Formats: sequence, structure tokens, C-alpha cells
Amino acid sequence: MNISRINRVRENMAACGLDQILVTSPLSVYYLTGTMVAPGERMFALYLNANGEIRLFANRLFALNGNVDVPLTEFDDTEDPIGLLSASVKPGKLGVDKTWPSQFTIRLMEALPGMVPVVGSAPVDDARMCKDAEEIALMRESSRMNDEAIARTIAGLQEGMTELELEELYLKNAKAVGGEGGSFTPISCFGANCAEPHHDNDETRLKAGDAVILDVGLMHKRYCSDMTRTVFFKSATDEQKHVYDVCRRANEAGRAAVRPGLPMCEFDRAARKVIEDAGYGKYFIHRTGHGIGLEVHEHPDNSSTSQIIARPGMCFSVEPGIYLPGNFGVRVEDLVVVTEDGCETLNLASRDFCVVG
Amino acid sequence: MNISRINRVRENMAACGLDQILVTSPLSVYYLTGTMVAPGERMFALYLNANGEIRLFANRLFALNGNVDVPLTEFDDTEDPIGLLSASVKPGKLGVDKTWPSQFTIRLMEALPGMVPVVGSAPVDDARMCKDAEEIALMRESSRMNDEAIARTIAGLQEGMTELELEELYLKNAKAVGGEGGSFTPISCFGANCAEPHHDNDETRLKAGDAVILDVGLMHKRYCSDMTRTVFFKSATDEQKHVYDVCRRANEAGRAAVRPGLPMCEFDRAARKVIEDAGYGKYFIHRTGHGIGLEVHEHPDNSSTSQIIARPGMCFSVEPGIYLPGNFGVRVEDLVVVTEDGCETLNLASRDFCVVG
Repeated sequence: MNISRINRVRENMAACGLDQILVTSPLSVYYLTGTMVAPGERMFALYLNANGEIRLFANRLFALNGNVDVPLTEFDDTEDPIGLLSASVKPGKLGVDKTWPSQFTIRLMEALPGMVPVVGSAPVDDARMCKDAEEIALMRESSRMNDEAIARTIAGLQEGMTELELEELYLKNAKAVGGEGGSFTPISCFGANCAEPHHDNDETRLKAGDAVILDVGLMHKRYCSDMTRTVFFKSATDEQKHVYDVCRRANEAGRAAVRPGLPMCEFDRAARKVIEDAGYGKYFIHRTGHGIGLEVHEHPDNSSTSQIIARPGMCFSVEPGIYLPGNFGVRVEDLVVVTEDGCETLNLASRDFCVVG
Repeated sequence: MNISRINRVRENMAACGLDQILVTSPLSVYYLTGTMVAPGERMFALYLNANGEIRLFANRLFALNGNVDVPLTEFDDTEDPIGLLSASVKPGKLGVDKTWPSQFTIRLMEALPGMVPVVGSAPVDDARMCKDAEEIALMRESSRMNDEAIARTIAGLQEGMTELELEELYLKNAKAVGGEGGSFTPISCFGANCAEPHHDNDETRLKAGDAVILDVGLMHKRYCSDMTRTVFFKSATDEQKHVYDVCRRANEAGRAAVRPGLPMCEFDRAARKVIEDAGYGKYFIHRTGHGIGLEVHEHPDNSSTSQIIARPGMCFSVEPGIYLPGNFGVRVEDLVVVTEDGCETLNLASRDFCVVG
């Protein structure tokens, strides 16, 4: 188990008045114990309290005995795991992970009438939000691999290929550079489809004059990368070049604004201002970014309403976009990690305006 | 919305003493309304009560307005969906879907102190367990496509190919026959790896004398298929032929036993007896099968402890296996649907002993 992370979670529990919590998200349990389980419909929970108790409850099927250094209670499919769990949980308030299936919370309430469940993910989510040195190294490596995979994919653009073929090409490149698979379904779209921020790739074929958006990420030792590049195929109009330039400058401004101590909404504002000043404000129809780590979307939110104060170790995307319906769209996305006096950009792939093919 | 399915759910609610339920599993909501949403972290729920009220609560992002014929309450990310939901829910007992993220149940309890949540998936799960004519037609078609995909895959076996390459070949064939993708990660393993019922495919290469297990399924209009065939590559020993024969006869006995009115454990017993009588009882280390439909594992359980009484329309697998550690393994799996006087086997692919290559 990772003692420093567990200690951080216990400090966060004290700060939000929780004496005991159940960590049930498999990735959060992995973060604290180094053990990954896909529990499916079976009960799986890590109990933690302020007195230093810690105990993992897992089905014997996952064969954790001897493979984890956390006190372990195992059970099989014929046993009642709620009964075992209720012997550890104390009466009073219990913080429960936000995604734990309701059947377990309800059955635990029935078994322990003195227990009052509250949503209790914050202590772990808050710890996960600020990456430690080991995690930052993995995030850096994941993005370095993604830089290489996207460069190979852009080099493979060919007239007449479909969006779905380009998706397949990226996933092949992600594997070739050592990634363990995509961190989300890639967006690889052409022309007017680029005006939809979350276009579902289809059979549209690449033709000269198209904008090409590649919004892609891969997994490296469970850590996610995520970046977007927009290039133009064979030719670009002055309008395309201008819109691209505005979006690239918004990305730069959004990253340049990042420093610890400021609320996240300031970074969204810095990026958004460049686009608004250029007259495209109403075409930037989403938040500037999202936190990322073990999950491709996690805390902190990088939006106009985010009051979260940036702290060293936070990782998030800066991804302004301009979407001109029926015409084309542009998005430029990089991941950053907050440092002591600003931020480090994890993606090194060129952001220069680029006509390929 | 599907009135006859909703009526069936209301009858089941009455039978288990529930006046109101929240259906939140996206597939259960699809089953009742024909609308599929992937809600991610956002609240999504269908409220149903005994008085005939029905209302779907969904984020505006999913653009359901005008696309569903169910009374609809929409909200956006700045609104409190629990507040909207609590205006419909009555005080007293509320059946909550077993997998609803706990954060919603807990926040609803806080908003409505007079509401008592209980696990309330049974009315819908019970309805889904007995497929109607439309569903049986889709299950039949999904398995027919799977028969074709597995035949093409067996025809493509080549010396030296890896388990992962065989997995890829099956998925390509599943798509080629019109499937929408795999219904689960295929198991495609060779030789001694066949002795692990849930082997993770790896780089093991196919060689003469290997048993080959293909446990595969695809999706057709959201309905899952799932079958297993075991063949032998280039040659087979007398022991392999004998064990195969025992397992094939167990599969036949397990299917022949199926008729409405009997508890499911009888079907497990019929299959298991053939293997026990042949002296391989301790090598059949899992249940005989599982229900299947919109999900690859759903009710009813086909195991030695299952007291569920078979009814017409129930779909499940019959998949006895014999696993000889360090040596080889065999499994023969078919899907069946219970009829008025027995069952129909959905898979038609040959179960004859087969040496290929």
C-alpha cells in the first residue's frame, strides 16, 4: 500500500469531518494499494478510518491473498459480504464512494441501522487531483508516447481514407509506440464534421481542403494521455488559417495563465478572451478543459465556473476550440501539470499551422 | 415506450410490494422506452409508480426532447436533478435499481427524509428474464450470426498464430457477418491455456496437437450471443477425443433437461451428472450457465443452487467444461430459449468432434 497517499487521504478526511470512509472505485483502490481489480457485480471496498484501521474486502475469485499488503477479508459467492463489512464499519456517519452501486449502500444501511451514509469520495478524489512525482513521471511518459503516435498518424493521412480508418490508424500507432490502448474513443474527423466537438467517426472520406481534427489519447501503466491537433489536408483557406491561429493563441494564453494559487476559472477566462477578442466567442461552445490522470476525466474542472484553486501537481487539459457549423472546426489541446511557479506542458508535438499531403 | 413490458413491470411491482421504483440501468430504460442513453456521471432515471405515473429524467445533453414518447423532465449541468426528481418521488418505500451510483440514492434520501430506499431491480430484471417474441427473434439472429462468425474463424486457424491474433480474427469475422462488435472479450486459447476457464489471451502460438477453445459472442441490435466450440489442431489424442465426447454429451444432457416448471438447478445437475459419471466431476469447476439478453450475464443463473423456476422465454447458456490443469481443457456452449414444452437451441454450429488444419 502507498502510505503517503493513505496519509493524505486521512488528512482530507479530517478536513471534511469524516471519521470513516469506503473507497470502492477500482482505480481509487489501485491508487492507494497498487492492486487493480475489476469487481463486476461483486462487492469490493476498502475501509479506512481515522484511527488508522484499513481493510480491503474482496471476493476470493480475485486471488488477492498473498498479493496485497493491506489487511484483507475475503469471501466467496455463497457468503454475505455486507455482513462481513458491517463488522468493521462503526455506527454514525460513513463516507461512501459516489459510484458504489446503490444495492451495497442500501443493504449496509439495513444491516447497520445506526450508520448514516454520506457522499464521501472527496478525500480520495482530492488526493488524486494533485499528482505525486511518480504519477507526474507516468503522465509525462504517456503524453510523450501520444506525441509520437499522433505524429505518425498525421504522417499517414491519405486522400479518400475514412474517419474510421484514421481512428484505426491512430490506435495501431498508439500500440506501436508502446501504449496499452486508447484512453478514450479517438475523434478523427474531417471537414464540416470538425464543427461538432464530439463527432462520432463515420465513413466520411478525406478530401483536399478539409480540416482534420485528431483528438486522441493512450494508456501508459494506467495513466491517460489526451491531446488534440488540427491540420489541413493539401490546402487551406485564409479563413481556416486565421481561425487556426486564433485557436492556437487561445491554447497558449490558457497555458500561460496557469499558476498555483489562482482559481481554475482564470485559466478558462484567459483562453476564452483570445477567442472572444477575435470575434469567435459564440463558437467556443465548451469548457476549456478537464482534469486527467488514472481517468481521462477527473478533477479539477477547467471551466468558467470552476472555483478550485490550482495547486502543484494538478494535471488538466487546455483545449479551446472554434466550431463553425456546416463549415469546419479547430481545436488545439495540450495537457499541463501545475508546478511551483507556473506549469509544465506535457505535450511537445508541434502546434504550428500545418498543411499536409 | 413499450406498454406491454411496462405493464409486466407494474405487475411485478405489485407482486413484490413496491408502489414506486426508479429504473436507472441504461439497458433497462432502453428495454422499457426504446431509448438508449450512456449517462456517464450524470443522473438518469425512469420513475414508475403503481398509479400509472411514468417520467424520464435526463440531462438535456442527450437531446431526448421530441425523441421519446415518455413524459420527460430535462435538466442541464447547472441544475440540481435530485431536486427535480424529488418532486415526483412519494414518501415511503422506493425501489432503487441495484447499480444506481450511491451518490444519487444518498442525495435523494437527504432531499426526501421520508423516503426509504430498498433494492428494487427485481420487477424489471424479472420482466427482462423472459424474452418476448421480438426479443427471441433478435436473440436467434444474433446467435445465427455468431454461428457463421465462429465457422469462419475456425476455418482461419493457422499454425503459429497467436491467441491474440485469433481473437482479432474472430472480431473481424463478427463484423463481417453484420455484428456490431463483440458482446464480451473473446476467449481464444490453445493447449494448456484451455485448462483455465477464463484465460486472458496472450502471445501463445498454435501448434499441432493443441486443443483450441473459442468462447465468443457478438452484438446484434443490442442483443448478445455467446457460444463456445473446442476443436483440435492437426491431431488429437484418444484422451482428448474422450474428454471432448464427455463434454459434448454433458452439453446435450443439459439442454435436453430444459423444460418450463423445473428449477434451473435440475439443468445444471443433468449436465454435471454426465461429467461426474465419466469420472471428471472435480474438473468441472464452474456453473453450467448464465442468463443472457441485453447483457451477456443476466438472470436466470443456471447453477447447482439456482431455485429459479424455468418459464417460456428464458434465455441462458449451457456450457459444461472439463479442465485438466497443465494439459488441456474442453468446453461446449450453446444458448437455449425455454419453450412451452422444452427448449430451442439458438446455436446451430456443429458440435461434432473436429480435428482441423
